[in-house]
Amino acid sequence: MNDGKYRKTLPAGAYYDPLNHRRELQSIWYRQWLCIGRADDWMDPGEFRRVRVGAEQVIITLAEDRSLHAFHNTCRHRGSQLCAADSGTFSNGRIVCPYHAWSYSLKGELRHAPRTTPSDSIELQDFPLYPVALEVWRGFVFINLDPANRTLEQALGAEADNLAAWPLEDLRRVHQEKHCLAANWKIFWENYLECYHCPGVHPDLCQLVPIYREGWFDYRDARPETARESPLNPVADQLHTMLRPGAVTWSDDGTTELPWFRDLGERERAAGMTFSTFVPTMFLVAHVDYVRTVRVLPVGPQETELNVDWYVHRDVVGHPKLEVERLTNFGSRVVREDARVCELNQQGILCGWHEHGVLLERENHVFEFQQWVRRCLGEPGG
Amino acid sequence: MNDGKYRKTLPAGAYYDPLNHRRELQSIWYRQWLCIGRADDWMDPGEFRRVRVGAEQVIITLAEDRSLHAFHNTCRHRGSQLCAADSGTFSNGRIVCPYHAWSYSLKGELRHAPRTTPSDSIELQDFPLYPVALEVWRGFVFINLDPANRTLEQALGAEADNLAAWPLEDLRRVHQEKHCLAANWKIFWENYLECYHCPGVHPDLCQLVPIYREGWFDYRDARPETARESPLNPVADQLHTMLRPGAVTWSDDGTTELPWFRDLGERERAAGMTFSTFVPTMFLVAHVDYVRTVRVLPVGPQETELNVDWYVHRDVVGHPKLEVERLTNFGSRVVREDARVCELNQQGILCGWHEHGVLLERENHVFEFQQWVRRCLGEPGG
Amino acid sequence: MNDGKYRKTLPAGAYYDPLNHRRELQSIWYRQWLCIGRADDWMDPGEFRRVRVGAEQVIITLAEDRSLHAFHNTCRHRGSQLCAADSGTFSNGRIVCPYHAWSYSLKGELRHAPRTTPSDSIELQDFPLYPVALEVWRGFVFINLDPANRTLEQALGAEADNLAAWPLEDLRRVHQEKHCLAANWKIFWENYLECYHCPGVHPDLCQLVPIYREGWFDYRDARPETARESPLNPVADQLHTMLRPGAVTWSDDGTTELPWFRDLGERERAAGMTFSTFVPTMFLVAHVDYVRTVRVLPVGPQETELNVDWYVHRDVVGHPKLEVERLTNFGSRVVREDARVCELNQQGILCGWHEHGVLLERENHVFEFQQWVRRCLGEPGG
Repeated sequence: MNDGKYRKTLPAGAYYDPLNHRRELQSIWYRQWLCIGRADDWMDPGEFRRVRVGAEQVIITLAEDRSLHAFHNTCRHRGSQLCAADSGTFSNGRIVCPYHAWSYSLKGELRHAPRTTPSDSIELQDFPLYPVALEVWRGFVFINLDPANRTLEQALGAEADNLAAWPLEDLRRVHQEKHCLAANWKIFWENYLECYHCPGVHPDLCQLVPIYREGWFDYRDARPETARESPLNPVADQLHTMLRPGAVTWSDDGTTELPWFRDLGERERAAGMTFSTFVPTMFLVAHVDYVRTVRVLPVGPQETELNVDWYVHRDVVGHPKLEVERLTNFGSRVVREDARVCELNQQGILCGWHEHGVLLERENHVFEFQQWVRRCLGEPGG
Repeated sequence: MNDGKYRKTLPAGAYYDPLNHRRELQSIWYRQWLCIGRADDWMDPGEFRRVRVGAEQVIITLAEDRSLHAFHNTCRHRGSQLCAADSGTFSNGRIVCPYHAWSYSLKGELRHAPRTTPSDSIELQDFPLYPVALEVWRGFVFINLDPANRTLEQALGAEADNLAAWPLEDLRRVHQEKHCLAANWKIFWENYLECYHCPGVHPDLCQLVPIYREGWFDYRDARPETARESPLNPVADQLHTMLRPGAVTWSDDGTTELPWFRDLGERERAAGMTFSTFVPTMFLVAHVDYVRTVRVLPVGPQETELNVDWYVHRDVVGHPKLEVERLTNFGSRVVREDARVCELNQQGILCGWHEHGVLLERENHVFEFQQWVRRCLGEPGG
Repeated sequence: MNDGKYRKTLPAGAYYDPLNHRRELQSIWYRQWLCIGRADDWMDPGEFRRVRVGAEQVIITLAEDRSLHAFHNTCRHRGSQLCAADSGTFSNGRIVCPYHAWSYSLKGELRHAPRTTPSDSIELQDFPLYPVALEVWRGFVFINLDPANRTLEQALGAEADNLAAWPLEDLRRVHQEKHCLAANWKIFWENYLECYHCPGVHPDLCQLVPIYREGWFDYRDARPETARESPLNPVADQLHTMLRPGAVTWSDDGTTELPWFRDLGERERAAGMTFSTFVPTMFLVAHVDYVRTVRVLPVGPQETELNVDWYVHRDVVGHPKLEVERLTNFGSRVVREDARVCELNQQGILCGWHEHGVLLERENHVFEFQQWVRRCLGEPGG
């Protein structure tokens, strides 16, 4: 094989080498904005949740003024863990270390170090909890372990604009699934970023979204030269229709009995599915009746945690036609189909004779993703 | 201890250091011919078996023309695993990758990469499955992960000649045992290559094979100076008799009710046991009524897989006196006795104060084996 | 935070880095005297016990002359493990290797290497078992893996003097608990060496030992300037009284129904508790009626084995008021309370943002311990 002739993937070691994984944690996961839930996951001041990002544990808690704050789960005195539980409540507005009872405000300020003597000359302001940046965007909570990062708004960029017509602030979660994926986090994204695998892997999805049968995401990708003039599906072209005739959303039969989001335009309604992608942390699919997110967290070089959430408008929460299974069956099956091939990909990449894979034109988004990874790591060619 | 005075074993780290193990995989296990079964383990075209060699997975499959072929278990496109099962059948003469449906012939040629576009300019001949060499010798299937190796015949060498009188092509397996040995693969071979441990470890075997009570493999080893003239056992000397009077094979009582292989000479019949040794992959013991093999595969620095197989002539398969337990009890017990002391040896070698063991004259074959290992690794003194 | 302003702990990696752990094994655990039990744990000649110290296994056995001897658990011939059991008996005064039957005396001398030939020219005195030093101090058995160490007496130093009034030789163990602590061994000792955590972690202990409520070990520490003149507790000062009025020992109600050790002075009786500390291996608390020891062994960078033993005078063993639960409840609870916070400390230290903790004046003993560790490792500042 003439190596220069084809566009190569990342080298195989990028998917399993522990040192490379540590570099990616430092250069990507500890520097990017990461979505870790919804602001209404916290009800009362003092409630906390613990999130693991790679090797780190972050505590997110609600302060008395209802602002959210995030910290590393470690006391500044001798490094004891503050919370051993995944969620709970700090009493009396204080985070008290279980070891020597140093106590911090819900915003992470050290308020009291018991029994210090004058000769210790402890100044409380020298010992705040190790801070983690936190911002809320339209109800979604993002954290960033790098205090010197750009703003969340810059990070979200144009992808956020796709969702302008959806009332994201008013969503309520109605279902959640956690998957432990036995694959590197990049394999998850590479799978997401191409539809070449769709015909073989997602038979039901290909029935619902006809262009996927061709292994393309979009009619315009499929016929780049002739997009406008195509006789194949001119209506689809203009309105960006994605679903098969008669279908309006991702569900087993393509229909819904739930009310539609009110402010969608003709284009969003016709499309039936609108994706927004926030690499590396999350993608979101907005339908006429519900929104689904898939959040990604790295656990180890060959292990990734996926959190899949289904949301409806808060006014729909008590709706008589809202059935969780009807809402979630279809998307849940697609996630499991993808998880299976991601895990196969991980296993095959471990072959010591496999140095690189090869990327086709229809895997352009995968290539762009890999270039972004290379750039994040400061590698040549990125 | 005067270190120069005694012949030393390999250094202790050779038996547990992960980096040394990786070097041995590269220099030995990925370059030597390895026996992985019998040709008749594959019945119909498309059947496959998966074998693990160190960190690698190899698929062996039967083509339409009944030739066997071996490949790494990885697709050339993006590196997906091809088979997640240990055995099965490829349908329609095609190995189809479960991810993007690239499909290969049963000989490993890429036959179809679906939905490629002209701009991809994929040339199918550039992407065969990563090949593994395969040859069949008298019914035994050998693979070699190094495409530039010498031929199997050269590798088998003179050891193969011992077996000329046995109809190896006509053997049929009647029993198989798999052992997971908690010891380095070299400890298995070192144990096999000396009989010094026999008196203490194999009481029944020493009853059956009297010279083993002396801790020697052979009367000629035992009395190198006086072999020919020995008054001790002149018949044994000439015919190389090994078994105690009245015994004809390895079984609990030394007898057999099965017919004997037809073409054995007086010498092979008198010996009652004929060993052929193919380091590192297999040894074979041929008796008058059955043949036993022990195949070896490295799993990790301190873990080795053993496959023990018992074979009879295909005409004996339905014989009324063929009882599996009677056939296998004796050899199975010997394997378990060896496994126990191999695992003790592994544990004791982990002692940080133990740098080297010492080898006696009767451990000459162990020394030669260790020299061979040193040579394979390109080490001085090998 | 002005880093120069505060006294810093060891760097976080000292508590989890595997390479650092290996250095500590070599520089500390394989060079210090380690208490591994009581001489009367061995009844008859030939009895042995196996002890693990880091990655090493040591056999301790009783010889015919009732002297104890310690060796690495590895044969000098090819490195086989000698004993696969944690305790047992060597028959006939011989330690016989299970592999090739080399046999050693109970003092570790090679006595017989079977079937050697003249050309092997084996000299038995060249192959004693790898020796481990062993000394008995007042009934306690200590071993040392470094043959060139200073004497046990020097190592015990002045701490041993605290215990002069107790009949340590005449103690008998009445209860034993083993704890597997998910924390680095240094975290165990740091916890032991400060009482700052007592108020929050040990409520019952603080009821029994009033000064602990202040987070100090001792009235003299608490009031260094005014120790002698203190109006607070002049009797306590002079007699070093530690327990609350009415209490005489560590028990749930502070009382005992057992006879007191006979030769205690007024001071030892008044104190009610006398600690002796033998870093890194053991501490001992002597009460008026019983003695408790906690022995420490490193298992891995984040795992430590604790053995807690309760002893009474041998004449008390059959005493009608001797109830094991009444004797052990209190101390056992304190150990479990400490274990919990040690494990929290270990977890929190894993945070990648935590480089160092900070030490207060009342953590002076922790600082001295960390300086000792630094010196053992030959590090600057130690």
